[in-house]
Amino acid sequence: MSQAISGIRPTPVRYGRGQSVYEQGSSSSALYRSETGLLRLVKVTPRGRTLTVRHLLPGDYFGEEVFQGNTHCYGVEALTRALVTALDPSSLDSPELLEVTRSIGDQMRRTMQLGYHQQTGDLRQRTVRYLLELADTPLGGEDNQNNLFVQATHELLAEGTSSTRESVSKVITELREDGLIESGYRQITLKNLEGLAAMLATLKVAELV
Amino acid sequence: MSQAISGIRPTPVRYGRGQSVYEQGSSSSALYRSETGLLRLVKVTPRGRTLTVRHLLPGDYFGEEVFQGNTHCYGVEALTRALVTALDPSSLDSPELLEVTRSIGDQMRRTMQLGYHQQTGDLRQRTVRYLLELADTPLGGEDNQNNLFVQATHELLAEGTSSTRESVSKVITELREDGLIESGYRQITLKNLEGLAAMLATLKVAELV
Repeated sequence: MSQAISGIRPTPVRYGRGQSVYEQGSSSSALYRSETGLLRLVKVTPRGRTLTVRHLLPGDYFGEEVFQGNTHCYGVEALTRALVTALDPSSLDSPELLEVTRSIGDQMRRTMQLGYHQQTGDLRQRTVRYLLELADTPLGGEDNQNNLFVQATHELLAEGTSSTRESVSKVITELREDGLIESGYRQITLKNLEGLAAMLATLKVAELV
Repeated sequence: MSQAISGIRPTPVRYGRGQSVYEQGSSSSALYRSETGLLRLVKVTPRGRTLTVRHLLPGDYFGEEVFQGNTHCYGVEALTRALVTALDPSSLDSPELLEVTRSIGDQMRRTMQLGYHQQTGDLRQRTVRYLLELADTPLGGEDNQNNLFVQATHELLAEGTSSTRESVSKVITELREDGLIESGYRQITLKNLEGLAAMLATLKVAELV
């Protein structure tokens, strides 16, 4: 697998939507780099619920627990088709290590931001913010009327906003009735970006009880 | 400041409890290493509420946004007396970079864990779990009757559990009435560790609405 040891360039592996790169609890043996697509780190609760704790964008390194020789505390799943390269962590030279450090540092910032976002605003606001965030990832796109859309199920939105599918569905219905979005199978179209952004102007901390 | 450039060993700086190492929004110019004490990264919401997004233990590197040349998205505050060393990021050699990468990776795991914890369990469970976590940090200690204690205010507990001081105070009162803890000024003594741990056996995802 290692470029340095074997002299062979590591070959990216292709994953389909919903496929797992590794499972929570499996043992860690490589460092990974996301090449294309969107992936996420998930934690499954003792009751079987899934929470999204980190997103992986193209260029992001992950599986950094290999530097501690740990097992994977989180599973990694592809949210779109994705290419992932497995690297031998012992083969990295100094510039590569700096690149890994920079990547993990940047993801740390985004992960803290996700945690912060999951705690601020009511569910309507959290859902809108998450949709706007996902629109800038490989889950997002632009239709032929220049409207942004996000390819996400209500379940995915729930897992990224500390909520349930039922509550998210209610919010999506409200947003649609207000003319802010359109929603179809696995796709939500952002019809009124200004109106959506305005909803985030007055945020308060959501209190968990 | 840099060991490599100036030949002078960087000198740790001492911070008192509550003192700020740097403020949210200030510009980033050094990489830091926590030497002693407990520090935290905080985010202040637009309404002025504080949320704890990451803890720093002795040996942890932080301010890794310096590798991106960013401003500090989060402030850093000492929760106990603490020693912190500022390092020139350009002076790090390969083994040091690996140490930084390992540290940031380990903190990433703990940060995702904190985010996950802030979303699972009711407030009583989240408070107990946070107390048990803090007991293993420099905020924790053991009294002369071999009871673990945590030096924390209700406000600090609220900021680490997505809650408010009022709600945490209610929980602390209940736990005291149940004989599980004792509480005094800035100190909570864990009287019945088994009873507290048992409370975490049945966790469910807290739903934010």
